[in-house]
Amino acid sequence: MNSMTLLHPTREELQIASVLHALSDPQRLRIVQSLAESPAPRRCGSFDLDVTKSTLTHHFRVLREAGVIDQREEGTARLNCLRRADLDERFPGLLDAVLAGAPAGAAAVAPAGAPALR
Amino acid sequence: MNSMTLLHPTREELQIASVLHALSDPQRLRIVQSLAESPAPRRCGSFDLDVTKSTLTHHFRVLREAGVIDQREEGTARLNCLRRADLDERFPGLLDAVLAGAPAGAAAVAPAGAPALR
Repeated sequence: MNSMTLLHPTREELQIASVLHALSDPQRLRIVQSLAESPAPRRCGSFDLDVTKSTLTHHFRVLREAGVIDQREEGTARLNCLRRADLDERFPGLLDAVLAGAPAGAAAVAPAGAPALR
Repeated sequence: MNSMTLLHPTREELQIASVLHALSDPQRLRIVQSLAESPAPRRCGSFDLDVTKSTLTHHFRVLREAGVIDQREEGTARLNCLRRADLDERFPGLLDAVLAGAPAGAAAVAPAGAPALR
C-alpha cells in the first residue's frame, strides 16, 4: 500500500543535475553498478553496503526521485531496477560512461580491510 | 602568490564520485558548458551567473578540487579552463555525455524571466 508514496519522475522530467547528484555518492554508485549487472529486480536488502538501514533507504530514495531507479512494492519487499532505457534516451552515453568509470566492485564502498555488513 | 593554494588533483587522483558531484549543480554545469565552448581560458568574472561572488568562488573551488577545471593566477585575475584531456582519459565519454545532456545556454541557471546579472 505504500506504493502510492513511491514517486517517480517521468522520462521527460529527468534532470541531468539531479541524475548526476544521485550518482555522485560512492554508495549510490555501487547500488547502480549492482543493478546494472542484475538481470532481475533486486530487493533493497540484497546490497552489500556497510550502512544503516535508514541510510540505505535514503540512498534508494535519492536514486528513485532523480529517476535513476524504479522501485515497486511486492508484498513486503521493495524491488529495485535501473531505469536504463529512460536514462539512455534522455542522456545518451551517460550511464555507460559512469559505469565504465566507476571503481570495480565493493572497493567503491567498503574501506580497505572492512568487511561489508549484511 | 595565491597560486600556491590552488590545489589540483592529478589525473590519477580524479574520482568519479567527486567529478559527478562537481557537475551536479546547475550553475557549475553552466560554467563547464561555457568553458567547453571557450577556446581560451576565462576569468571567473566573465560568467553570466546570477550568484554572489562568494558563491561563484565556491563553485570554482568545487570544480577545481574535483579536477574538472584548472585554475591559475595571472596578475590579479584567476583564469579557468576545462581539464578535458584528463577527464576524457580517466572517464571516457563522460564529459561529452554530460555536455550533450545539459540544458542549453543560460536556461540552465537563470529562473524563467530573470535576467542574468552582470
